[in-house]
Amino acid sequence: MAVDLLGGDDAPAVVVDGALRAVCDDPDLHLLLVGPTRVAGALIDALDPAQRDRITVRPTHSVVDMADDPSAARADTTVRAAVAAVRAGYADALVSAGSTGATVTAAALVLGRWPDVRRPALAAALPAVSGTVVLLDVGGSLEPSPATLARNAALGAAYAAVAHGITAPRVGLLSVGTEAGKGDRARRLTDPVLGAAALPGDARYVGLVEGYDVCLGTSADVVVTDGFTGNVLLKAIEGAYAMAGGNPPGGGAPRAAALLGVAGTVVVCHGAARADDIASGIALAAHLWRRDATERVAALLGGDRTDRTTDTEVRTS
Amino acid sequence: MAVDLLGGDDAPAVVVDGALRAVCDDPDLHLLLVGPTRVAGALIDALDPAQRDRITVRPTHSVVDMADDPSAARADTTVRAAVAAVRAGYADALVSAGSTGATVTAAALVLGRWPDVRRPALAAALPAVSGTVVLLDVGGSLEPSPATLARNAALGAAYAAVAHGITAPRVGLLSVGTEAGKGDRARRLTDPVLGAAALPGDARYVGLVEGYDVCLGTSADVVVTDGFTGNVLLKAIEGAYAMAGGNPPGGGAPRAAALLGVAGTVVVCHGAARADDIASGIALAAHLWRRDATERVAALLGGDRTDRTTDTEVRTS
Repeated sequence: MAVDLLGGDDAPAVVVDGALRAVCDDPDLHLLLVGPTRVAGALIDALDPAQRDRITVRPTHSVVDMADDPSAARADTTVRAAVAAVRAGYADALVSAGSTGATVTAAALVLGRWPDVRRPALAAALPAVSGTVVLLDVGGSLEPSPATLARNAALGAAYAAVAHGITAPRVGLLSVGTEAGKGDRARRLTDPVLGAAALPGDARYVGLVEGYDVCLGTSADVVVTDGFTGNVLLKAIEGAYAMAGGNPPGGGAPRAAALLGVAGTVVVCHGAARADDIASGIALAAHLWRRDATERVAALLGGDRTDRTTDTEVRTS
Repeated sequence: MAVDLLGGDDAPAVVVDGALRAVCDDPDLHLLLVGPTRVAGALIDALDPAQRDRITVRPTHSVVDMADDPSAARADTTVRAAVAAVRAGYADALVSAGSTGATVTAAALVLGRWPDVRRPALAAALPAVSGTVVLLDVGGSLEPSPATLARNAALGAAYAAVAHGITAPRVGLLSVGTEAGKGDRARRLTDPVLGAAALPGDARYVGLVEGYDVCLGTSADVVVTDGFTGNVLLKAIEGAYAMAGGNPPGGGAPRAAALLGVAGTVVVCHGAARADDIASGIALAAHLWRRDATERVAALLGGDRTDRTTDTEVRTS
């Protein structure tokens, strides 16, 4: 697992702490630390000799600041170097808590998007009354077209089946009411498209769902929305659990999300990630890799996914 | 208080129950029941003679269905009759749990919008760590322009001061990060407008805020967003409190919201309102009326608000 040591508001300290925890928690985990050797050295020094054998370092010094344009992820930045390491086969997956836009852009450019994916989506898994709800997009693309929303429904359904073992996922489109026609223009255009679309495996479209469903999962296992709404929603749910005095038994709002639609395993952690969140993100990346999730999602979606699009057209903001 | 007896998924039963509770809870409350006489009669029969003196009835039979176009609020519907009763002075305020779009459209057409308000906004008050957060819009206008978002910041600030006694409200624009430039096109356009705008009273703009702030209120007392995002957010927070096993001490996510920007006091209850929610909505309308909130918000905003716009141009969806 390639870890971006400089990504995140409190990097490198929390990233080092999180990576340490991940190495101690999982005896089969090997990390490729991407960042300054001094920072990597501090982490290695804290490990016992047997654990040190599971660490390699790729020295890199530059970082994409949260306020930078995402395309600032030049070749010498940690996120770009980490993605390149995955592309070259030095690592199986990538974890970064840096600028989401920069990570998505770097992953799309270097790993390549799947041919029918214009904009990759970030999928978060939330605890629900009976199992898990997959919410996407939570920040990959803030203003997706109806076609991208519909594509995300298929990506999310395949991901729910592969990563969370939901055999026949119910897929809903988030809106302000459940009656057909409710919502803004993007929802009104996307709803009939999804109604007519074939979803992967045994997934089925259940129509419009509301905000409750993101938390309760009563009507849907996969909730599709734009990256703007998904992002503020996820953070509001985290805030609500804090206000209510604690997380539900199944866990709280996740601070790590999987990037779907690129040819590789990429996990994006919250910019304000704590060490626990980094460790969770690394564990999620390892889980996805061990399940061969990217390939299985691709297989469920059908089509030839080796013809990757790596043009420079993709932009996220 | 004019009450729309036929508005809401479970009308008239829950509306009758809610109105009963409101009359019993508040000895100074007078209700104008707008709906079928049979339904109003059932409510009146449940009251003792002294309470009956506080009820009048405006017989109306037609209703706007949730799936109808909002402009279907013809003159003979309950919501249109209730708004007309407020306009004519038979009632001081209106409470409906019917189609939000129909209520907003009827209020804008019959009561009139304030001259600088293109689309009225729904404001909800949520419990926060230290006091209250006013979230708007929660469903009045799903795709507002940057100018409407900026206008809503002023409306929300004035409302927070008048209705919730927040003396110097901090106003934030909801986005996916706090750094300038974060967000979709609407947010990137609105942020500098708000940075340069004069807000009413002692309110001040604090910049971009995130989803947490809607629940915690750490950075802002007024959180401005579009009606689509606000609506799904409010329902997700309600779902999160249910998942977490209960509401925070200050109360849960509200199921009644005040309509701002029209020349009258209008409260919209959630379509799936329960009797408690209807009673809360009536209590909110009474609270606003007793505080002379509409006039005081208008005074804080300045300008001549008697020149009401009542053209037929306004549309909500």
